[in-house]
Amino acid sequence: MFKNEPFLTIRGSIIDAQLVETLLLLSVNYSTLITTKASRIVNAARGRTILEFGARRAQGYDAAVEGARCAIIGGCFGTSNTLTGFQYDVPVTGTIAHSYIQVFENEYDAFLSYAKVQPNNCILLVDTYNTLKSGVPNSIKVAQDYLIPNGYRLKGIRLDSGDLAYLSKRARIMLDDAGLFDCKISASNSLNEDVIDDLLTQGAQIDAFGVGENLITSASSPVIGGVYKIVAAEDGHGEINPLIKLSENVEKVTNPGYKRLYRFYDKDTNKAIADYIALYNEVVPEDKLEIFDPIAPWKRKTIHNYRIRELHVPIFKQGELVYKEPTIEETIQYTQNELDSLWDEVKRLKFPHQYYVDLSQQLFDLKNKLIEENRIKQIPNSK
Amino acid sequence: MFKNEPFLTIRGSIIDAQLVETLLLLSVNYSTLITTKASRIVNAARGRTILEFGARRAQGYDAAVEGARCAIIGGCFGTSNTLTGFQYDVPVTGTIAHSYIQVFENEYDAFLSYAKVQPNNCILLVDTYNTLKSGVPNSIKVAQDYLIPNGYRLKGIRLDSGDLAYLSKRARIMLDDAGLFDCKISASNSLNEDVIDDLLTQGAQIDAFGVGENLITSASSPVIGGVYKIVAAEDGHGEINPLIKLSENVEKVTNPGYKRLYRFYDKDTNKAIADYIALYNEVVPEDKLEIFDPIAPWKRKTIHNYRIRELHVPIFKQGELVYKEPTIEETIQYTQNELDSLWDEVKRLKFPHQYYVDLSQQLFDLKNKLIEENRIKQIPNSK
Repeated sequence: MFKNEPFLTIRGSIIDAQLVETLLLLSVNYSTLITTKASRIVNAARGRTILEFGARRAQGYDAAVEGARCAIIGGCFGTSNTLTGFQYDVPVTGTIAHSYIQVFENEYDAFLSYAKVQPNNCILLVDTYNTLKSGVPNSIKVAQDYLIPNGYRLKGIRLDSGDLAYLSKRARIMLDDAGLFDCKISASNSLNEDVIDDLLTQGAQIDAFGVGENLITSASSPVIGGVYKIVAAEDGHGEINPLIKLSENVEKVTNPGYKRLYRFYDKDTNKAIADYIALYNEVVPEDKLEIFDPIAPWKRKTIHNYRIRELHVPIFKQGELVYKEPTIEETIQYTQNELDSLWDEVKRLKFPHQYYVDLSQQLFDLKNKLIEENRIKQIPNSK
Repeated sequence: MFKNEPFLTIRGSIIDAQLVETLLLLSVNYSTLITTKASRIVNAARGRTILEFGARRAQGYDAAVEGARCAIIGGCFGTSNTLTGFQYDVPVTGTIAHSYIQVFENEYDAFLSYAKVQPNNCILLVDTYNTLKSGVPNSIKVAQDYLIPNGYRLKGIRLDSGDLAYLSKRARIMLDDAGLFDCKISASNSLNEDVIDDLLTQGAQIDAFGVGENLITSASSPVIGGVYKIVAAEDGHGEINPLIKLSENVEKVTNPGYKRLYRFYDKDTNKAIADYIALYNEVVPEDKLEIFDPIAPWKRKTIHNYRIRELHVPIFKQGELVYKEPTIEETIQYTQNELDSLWDEVKRLKFPHQYYVDLSQQLFDLKNKLIEENRIKQIPNSK
């Protein structure tokens, strides 16, 4: 969600519009938050697999279930949340638990037992006792003693503690020395996009990352500040009057009026140039447009060679649902296409370039006019 | 929740115990998180009222509803979440919305209309246009024109933007000059315990704080890392064998065995001295005990004159619920009593003193023995 963008437009009686406020906001805020966070983490992984492992640390039951769905939409390959898998038909994934290993007399017996149950999908958790001294050697031994002689392969190992860069490099060498080149290494343990980015920069030999609490709560930034504001009121004659809220904080001043939201794409690269908020009945020029930063209106830029897309799509009309809900695959693909249309610069993990969300000149003028009018007219006895 | 403390003990078949893991963890983690955060915020407010205003930014539907309940348990006076109020019979509170004010031709008319509808509970939101130039003067005018002549008082005003210390001090003077000494000032706008603490240190004239996103998501620390680990397995003969998980990270090494959890209180002050984790069948000395830090076992202290309380209470026995759920009032009172039993030093907002959670010597010895045994025995071909 971009700051100050009319993401959703609701038109209705004031009571109806008020009643849906809180549920709409919390749904849109949370799902946007987790989808965005997942996308950042996937981005940091540079093509490696991200798995969602956060249910036990989610902020409540539907945060866990819906959050896992958003994680998949944001680009995760699968989730450990079996209920999300059941409800939304997304891939469910996971490995062995520490408790499974602990109830056996020793780690080797536990691994062997698991390999017999899951010979085609054998991913062994190697840090219950000592990753390099027992976990990895026992995994290799089970591959050699049981899996390979029976025509199977060791699919993977999972690191869950210790220094993941060091351990993964050492484990890779041990696995390769045993001829297990195809055995994947996955890792978990309080990961987030920054840690993943750093691990990969250091040459960590990790093929898949399981991300828990930092994804499902968007821990580094657990709030999206989406708001729901009245922008216009219709009088008895069908006339739509723009309304404004001033506030003592500049960023809390609303954009008045019934509006449309457009996105401009460069025709050559198909990348998004800027978003543009205009009044509902404005005609948007199709070949050349001067856009400007509404906070610093002297910063202006003329754009050409663009394609215009109106972003709002109707969902309810006169109380009737007119929108066909896409499948989860369509939603994943849609999200990926949208992300692809953004320049890498605005998707950078740290200090990304700002994506432009500009106001039309007419809207900007209206906003300033209403600010001036209300500054005066609300003062008692000013008339 | 204290680190490494057996907060809940579950005994059952391994499959049953596994099935409840995720739901138990997420319920306990989230409710502990929000109750703790609420308590910190209430603590920072030095006796002033805290209201929970976060539903629209909660991480999902039941985070909003259950989180608001936890906020009340943690010491908040009320919540804006009407569903929580309905389901749990807790006080619901709120003020006028900006949208209500905006649909009127001017702020004065809006305030007057609201005063007529809520003459006994008239709290006016003053920042829609300009707090000091119109919001506060219009509030005073409505009190003088309508409320006072009709035998009512202006109950309060709410600040929602701008510098809350400056604005509240100015507003207080304006209200007092108009004789509205009993008009309370409430404030909201991305508040948390640090901001509230600083505002009060600066002499802000605020009687009540509405706290939204930072409370309902515990934004500064949105995760409690509670875990669920197997600690013992019963063999066919009723023998309970302790189990351990080592991990590459010291803090992820589990405390083995079936255990009890005790809290020691100083008999004179009734303040909690330390928690103490012991094996289930250990006898805890009643008059003198040497406790020590399990991470730095040379740090030892002998305690006397204590009262021992066993913290676990049975909830289910053989699958039957044996616990009578307390009322919300009882839960609020219980939480307050528990907080009162902690020294202020461990409740300090910044860099609190660490509360001690110690292991019994027997448990500590068992842990070290199992660490040593498993370090060796898990290595392939070590036998």
